[in-house]
Amino acid sequence: MQRLPIKHCRECGTSVRYRLPDDGDTRERAVCTECATVHYENPLNVVGTVPVLGERVLLCKRNIEPRRGKWTLPAGFMELGETTAQGAARETTEEAGAQFEIEDLFTVMSVPRVGQVHLYYRARLTSDVFDPGHETLEARLFHEHEIPWDELAFRTVRETLQRYFADRQAGRFGTHAFDID
Amino acid sequence: MQRLPIKHCRECGTSVRYRLPDDGDTRERAVCTECATVHYENPLNVVGTVPVLGERVLLCKRNIEPRRGKWTLPAGFMELGETTAQGAARETTEEAGAQFEIEDLFTVMSVPRVGQVHLYYRARLTSDVFDPGHETLEARLFHEHEIPWDELAFRTVRETLQRYFADRQAGRFGTHAFDID
Repeated sequence: MQRLPIKHCRECGTSVRYRLPDDGDTRERAVCTECATVHYENPLNVVGTVPVLGERVLLCKRNIEPRRGKWTLPAGFMELGETTAQGAARETTEEAGAQFEIEDLFTVMSVPRVGQVHLYYRARLTSDVFDPGHETLEARLFHEHEIPWDELAFRTVRETLQRYFADRQAGRFGTHAFDID
Repeated sequence: MQRLPIKHCRECGTSVRYRLPDDGDTRERAVCTECATVHYENPLNVVGTVPVLGERVLLCKRNIEPRRGKWTLPAGFMELGETTAQGAARETTEEAGAQFEIEDLFTVMSVPRVGQVHLYYRARLTSDVFDPGHETLEARLFHEHEIPWDELAFRTVRETLQRYFADRQAGRFGTHAFDID
């Protein structure tokens, strides 16, 4: 996902300049030097699931950068036209080829350093057969004691798994909103 | 917020064409016909609060389009570099000039028709003096029976207020994730 400065206007192709727009906005935006179009850049949502079959959680070994070869929960960028739950389900299908029913929203994590919000849903797997897509080297079920904590791809994944096992231990699943530096 | 098709490449200014990128992506993106830069368009987050003082909820009368003159909870587009809670607090300061302490995440609403996710936090007001910004005509506290249900600006606001009063009645506040057609 690009987060480089915008260089040219999406409307007319002329160069932009970062400045305060004329509408009272208090942030510098990329404003076209010709047609004055203002370009907004905003955080992105990453949506995914914690897919569970009985006592085991499904993790995917990444076949793409960043963190190729590390383990992750199925997740990816939310697309226009879908809900957070639909996006989470789509990513689970694409990355793991899993059969599942989506359940409640589980974590909502702001990651301001990279301009992202990550939202994970719990999902109940209905089969232990997986058909992972090209982004995944391997899809596999893990008991809690088997989780490769040192080989997880992202802190959002670790924090979500930690809360999942804690809630399961407590016998009650909540929705957890918190921030990641 | 612009959701018009992208016409020109942000990197080089050349015209783009909507097509499947060459990287296995399954969605059409705006791809530059010259430098092949792929432009992604993704949902936006709107963040806000339900500010409460005792029994009363703070609403703001909008001074901007859309829905000028209608009542809303303080909310606006999340910015890069902030968390959802920070964005919600910023909007509450900008639109109402309120003094408050932010509390737990209350609603998470997907609005796929407009490509948005709305996230509201509960907030505890610490003063009944407000200093609304230029986007707000009036900031005022409402008891539940005073809420101008027919004069609310957005369905996300109505749904959030309904759940707030229902949870208050039930004596327990949760986090509510749902979709709005």
